[in-house]
Amino acid sequence: MYRFVTSNRHKFEEVSEMAALYGIEIEWVRMKYEEIQDDSTERISYDSCNKLSRIVEAPYFVDDSGLFINALRGFPGPYSNYVSSTIGNEGILKIMDDVDDRTAYFLTVVSMNEGHSITQFIGKVMGKIARSIRGSNGFGYDPIFIPEGSDRTFAEMDIKAKNAISHRSIAFRGLFEYIKMNQTAKK
Amino acid sequence: MYRFVTSNRHKFEEVSEMAALYGIEIEWVRMKYEEIQDDSTERISYDSCNKLSRIVEAPYFVDDSGLFINALRGFPGPYSNYVSSTIGNEGILKIMDDVDDRTAYFLTVVSMNEGHSITQFIGKVMGKIARSIRGSNGFGYDPIFIPEGSDRTFAEMDIKAKNAISHRSIAFRGLFEYIKMNQTAKK
Repeated sequence: MYRFVTSNRHKFEEVSEMAALYGIEIEWVRMKYEEIQDDSTERISYDSCNKLSRIVEAPYFVDDSGLFINALRGFPGPYSNYVSSTIGNEGILKIMDDVDDRTAYFLTVVSMNEGHSITQFIGKVMGKIARSIRGSNGFGYDPIFIPEGSDRTFAEMDIKAKNAISHRSIAFRGLFEYIKMNQTAKK
Repeated sequence: MYRFVTSNRHKFEEVSEMAALYGIEIEWVRMKYEEIQDDSTERISYDSCNKLSRIVEAPYFVDDSGLFINALRGFPGPYSNYVSSTIGNEGILKIMDDVDDRTAYFLTVVSMNEGHSITQFIGKVMGKIARSIRGSNGFGYDPIFIPEGSDRTFAEMDIKAKNAISHRSIAFRGLFEYIKMNQTAKK
């Protein structure tokens, strides 16, 4: 049984839905864990995953995601959760009010510890920051992020439409395909 | 010899100036170190100080400081450095554009490791966020912070005037008086 360590119910629900498509069952280890401050989401994720081995039984994985806005030098980046819970989407839109370059990307890094080693899966989706808050699905920055090729924000899509293209789904498809491949190899 | 571990030249200069008034000489250990993500500056500082014992010889101390804006639920708080280097003072002023409650505080936590134990010294100064960027002294948020009882920002004061009232000076006076007291006791 693979364990998903996260305190975020939305993340667990999104990822469970994807896992089911692969016939993989995942268990929710609902806890907050310590993260380091770093500009690199990959390093933060690796470090958290590594330290969790003291208290969570492998195999388990963690998800670190962030929104990186080019005109703001990557802000809010690795501190996306904190920024979301303080200044929120309203704050981001205010800073971006007179900013023409609205390009941004969403990044997910999944780190899995199988007991003997840690493997990372990356998902990235390019897009732009909307001019206003739109939609009520999803969570976090979904109402202000318009993925490339779409005219809707993530929050204007249902979970299936979002999962078809999102940064998180790209990273987790990598994870689930890796798991399936290993399971097949063992048979 | 007491060691001040910081990558920030401005901090080292401010603190050296204060130390000299107490006849205390400090050595600059110029390095970046790992910090955890946490809402509590005290916990971040304690954790950093504790982990540094693997690589820095005691006695040494670290300084964690942040600006906490009440209307923004404490933002930028423990991520003040990161926010300063991404959205900067301009970004903060934009978010605060139509915000009437401009109250904020600057906090410094100094953690000293003497080899056998870690002691913390806290400095806090209440104030408000200016309507524009004013002054060119100091660093970070100094140009937008007006301490209570003054009509100038920290960046409009010279280093001596700022040191007379700043959060950092309050915390470090605590540290230096503690050091002097211990030195006297040993004589």
